Amino acid sequence: MTEPAPVFTSGVDHERLTAQLRFVLEVDKLKRILRRNLLVDGSRRENDAEHSWHLAVAARVFAEYAPEGTDIEHVVELLLLHDVVEIDAGDTFVYDTAASESQAERERLAADRIFTLLPEDQAIRARALWDEFEARETSEARFAKAVDRLAPMLANWHTDGGTWKQFGVTKEQVLEKVKIISEGSEALGSYALALIDDAERRGYLRRG
Amino acid sequence: MTEPAPVFTSGVDHERLTAQLRFVLEVDKLKRILRRNLLVDGSRRENDAEHSWHLAVAARVFAEYAPEGTDIEHVVELLLLHDVVEIDAGDTFVYDTAASESQAERERLAADRIFTLLPEDQAIRARALWDEFEARETSEARFAKAVDRLAPMLANWHTDGGTWKQFGVTKEQVLEKVKIISEGSEALGSYALALIDDAERRGYLRRG
Ligand SMILES: [Ca+2]
Repeated sequence: MTEPAPVFTSGVDHERLTAQLRFVLEVDKLKRILRRNLLVDGSRRENDAEHSWHLAVAARVFAEYAPEGTDIEHVVELLLLHDVVEIDAGDTFVYDTAASESQAERERLAADRIFTLLPEDQAIRARALWDEFEARETSEARFAKAVDRLAPMLANWHTDGGTWKQFGVTKEQVLEKVKIISEGSEALGSYALALIDDAERRGYLRRG
Repeated sequence: MTEPAPVFTSGVDHERLTAQLRFVLEVDKLKRILRRNLLVDGSRRENDAEHSWHLAVAARVFAEYAPEGTDIEHVVELLLLHDVVEIDAGDTFVYDTAASESQAERERLAADRIFTLLPEDQAIRARALWDEFEARETSEARFAKAVDRLAPMLANWHTDGGTWKQFGVTKEQVLEKVKIISEGSEALGSYALALIDDAERRGYLRRG
């Protein structure tokens, strides 16, 4: 772990600020966690930090497609933290069933370690946000997850099939992810469905 | 420019969604705009997209150090978009005076092009956010800028002087940036000042 500079700041609770700095420095590591999918221009794999930024922007742009009453600022907050656990647990490819089984436990341990770097009140709040995202019981969490699932589909379509082609993903497998998008946003779900139909026509998906 | 997939989505204003997708795909390019500073572990240069994510997280963590009444969700919104103009204008090193002079004009042209990819109502709103950040007249913009200025100082301290050493930056030059931090947050300004004093003791700054 990277320790904050041992400098004293007047008028501030030193221990509290140090804990906050420790967290901010620790999550810098998310910039080095690589996902499977490529950037939209195909030049390299995407990392979790830039991915989280892109989702936050996309969530705001697509806000009107969230169910009425969805708090978009809360969606952004969920998205900013949703992947932080991958600093310890790594990125799990959504079509890798074996890894997905152990993923939940590895991510819980990561959440236990990383969020508790923060002062207790902030640790509790950050953990609650991550739990909310994972549970997908609020419309904010469902919309956040929808945007999270849509983004790699856009990248795959724009890189001639990307990870679909690379890993021989079938239309049936992708349609399960489209279902998650539809649960968060009817409009984005429709778009994803049209995109997948088009991807199939273009031969980006393996015939199951 | 990357054109969205030409697929029709039922029940949605096709032209509007296409404009939104065009913007979301376009800003993917921010992931390829490199800043001067390194990641906290020194492994490589940071890009603007992951930088924007890190600032948004840091702004939330440090929220209590913003002046009373500061709307942190608005700060996050400012930070998510503040560097998007660098897709066209490139990153300008904060200690590069010559480049800084032409920077304002290049960034304005970039804002004209990039934000107008969005549907008009969203383009107006995004442009207003960017103008607000640049003007630093609201406490939200000043706090956002403070976090933006603090982050590379943290990275420099943690990489044995980083860009300060690389480009022979003096303490006086850094203190001008600390002033901007203090204008957004007294506490973060005090911290930055203590950090710079310590950096000087460690020989990370050139004697002016
Ligand atoms: Ca900048």
